[in-house]
Amino acid sequence: MALPCEIGDYTDFYTSIHHATTIGKQFRPDNPLLPNYQWVPIGYHGRSSSIQVSTPGLGHEFARPYGQTKAPDAPQPSLAPSRRLDYELELGVFIGRPNAPGEPIAMSDAEDHVFGIALFNDWSARDIQAWEYQPLGPFLSKNFASTLSPWVVTLDALEPFREPFRRPDGDPQPLPYLDSAANRERGAIAIELEVWLQTARMREQGSAGYRLMRSNYRDAYWTVAQMVAHHTVNGCNLRAGDLFGSGTLSGPDPSEAGSLVELSAGGKRPITLANGETRTFLEDGDTVILRGYCERTGYRRIGLGECRGTVTTAARGR
Amino acid sequence: MALPCEIGDYTDFYTSIHHATTIGKQFRPDNPLLPNYQWVPIGYHGRSSSIQVSTPGLGHEFARPYGQTKAPDAPQPSLAPSRRLDYELELGVFIGRPNAPGEPIAMSDAEDHVFGIALFNDWSARDIQAWEYQPLGPFLSKNFASTLSPWVVTLDALEPFREPFRRPDGDPQPLPYLDSAANRERGAIAIELEVWLQTARMREQGSAGYRLMRSNYRDAYWTVAQMVAHHTVNGCNLRAGDLFGSGTLSGPDPSEAGSLVELSAGGKRPITLANGETRTFLEDGDTVILRGYCERTGYRRIGLGECRGTVTTAARGR
Repeated sequence: MALPCEIGDYTDFYTSIHHATTIGKQFRPDNPLLPNYQWVPIGYHGRSSSIQVSTPGLGHEFARPYGQTKAPDAPQPSLAPSRRLDYELELGVFIGRPNAPGEPIAMSDAEDHVFGIALFNDWSARDIQAWEYQPLGPFLSKNFASTLSPWVVTLDALEPFREPFRRPDGDPQPLPYLDSAANRERGAIAIELEVWLQTARMREQGSAGYRLMRSNYRDAYWTVAQMVAHHTVNGCNLRAGDLFGSGTLSGPDPSEAGSLVELSAGGKRPITLANGETRTFLEDGDTVILRGYCERTGYRRIGLGECRGTVTTAARGR
Repeated sequence: MALPCEIGDYTDFYTSIHHATTIGKQFRPDNPLLPNYQWVPIGYHGRSSSIQVSTPGLGHEFARPYGQTKAPDAPQPSLAPSRRLDYELELGVFIGRPNAPGEPIAMSDAEDHVFGIALFNDWSARDIQAWEYQPLGPFLSKNFASTLSPWVVTLDALEPFREPFRRPDGDPQPLPYLDSAANRERGAIAIELEVWLQTARMREQGSAGYRLMRSNYRDAYWTVAQMVAHHTVNGCNLRAGDLFGSGTLSGPDPSEAGSLVELSAGGKRPITLANGETRTFLEDGDTVILRGYCERTGYRRIGLGECRGTVTTAARGR
């Protein structure tokens, strides 16, 4: 099975303020949210070559990545398989219509450039990231693999599930180039999201897995249209097939966190699964399943299918 | 004229320790070089869609980008054309032979995966970068345009200009996965590099421009082979046509700085050009020309041609 389209460039956003705040607290307890967050739809470029499709019934298997890590008290770093491997619950947004270099896409046209939405797991090696990411951002901690669900749901199909986009009281309103009446009225999309974990032992026991969390895309701090308008305001050209990741979609409640580093408080609070196993980060043989769907009385339920990926044992010594 | 090949993914490295130190001093006077720099060939993903070729005789024109910036004393950010637009003197390294997902490329094979080298200007909007880049790295400050020279010089052609790769006394040696006898013996490449600035007034005066600086690629802290081995050690797959940027190639002397933000000390020390004009950052109508060549007695001179780009006036209000 192939990817739904050829992805030219992949951009990862960071649109959940709840994720940004929880992660920020782990690094900067006194100052969890950086001052740009409420103004800039933060994004950065990712790797398109290593995005693979979740084939129905099989998913996507990849080996635990190696990388440099350095313990705070170690005299120097070393190369080893990641010990803090995590998933990230995201949605993937596909660009359908390109723009020419130098020609920004206004908020009023932004959704006309979007084809549709899929489930997306942007796996992360938290220990590799901590050592490498200053000053230019994550690199090897992210580019070993990303997994995309095989079906793309068009924005048209999501029409019944649109909702107003609102900022919490007291938060700044978006700058004019990130604002429009349509975005305020219907910029958000209500998509129920779930992450399931199936360990190797659960597979042996015949269990389909344990649900780790639920959240809803309506809680994102920036909308699809805002991602498109921001990405192009400097003249950057998008091409058909380009992919945006929403960033990890954590909701307002701590139980709605879209990654293990949040759910386990940075590895300090192991999560107990239904069969008594515990996890802080992913172990070899773990399968992570993302699911998404939209439901509203009087409308047909829409499923986004599933996005399934399995971590296998790291290859032998590098 | 088209790009030399279809670029799947573009990765920008940061291989000049002189550039990293000078930039670091502007942000952190007491701690200019971050602790990971001497261990990790720092890199991050860039945008491939906005890389354009420098057509001989014409170059590449692009409009000054808009973006969010925020002055330290301003109550909130605003959207405006960048006022600190800069070039970056880089080399572009083209991948010729791919690797499969999950299969790292060892140092001993790394150069077999490289096709050749071109000149590369990875333009930067320093004011946009300062506001947006925490915590995930540069984004709109870089992805509005990059300019590539039209000719690729193969590694075979550069054979006579190979030199030993050496670390300064007291610096740590690379970890084993970034080390090889061949890399120590001939990992570096002696390529003379120059940046020229031709202002609009110089063009009117019939002047070909003013040489802002010279440096040499031999002074990079990480080699081509090390970039390839590091990029793939986690299993990340490269594809034919992928592009690596070397990062800004500043030399050890302050006069060898590969960007205006370095040459003008962050805009504090204007540079006086031959015709009396001054610059801190680029002005509308400025053309930046990168040149590169290799010379060694007894061998044929090899030129990398030129990489020429011109900044035009920002489009009207966004």
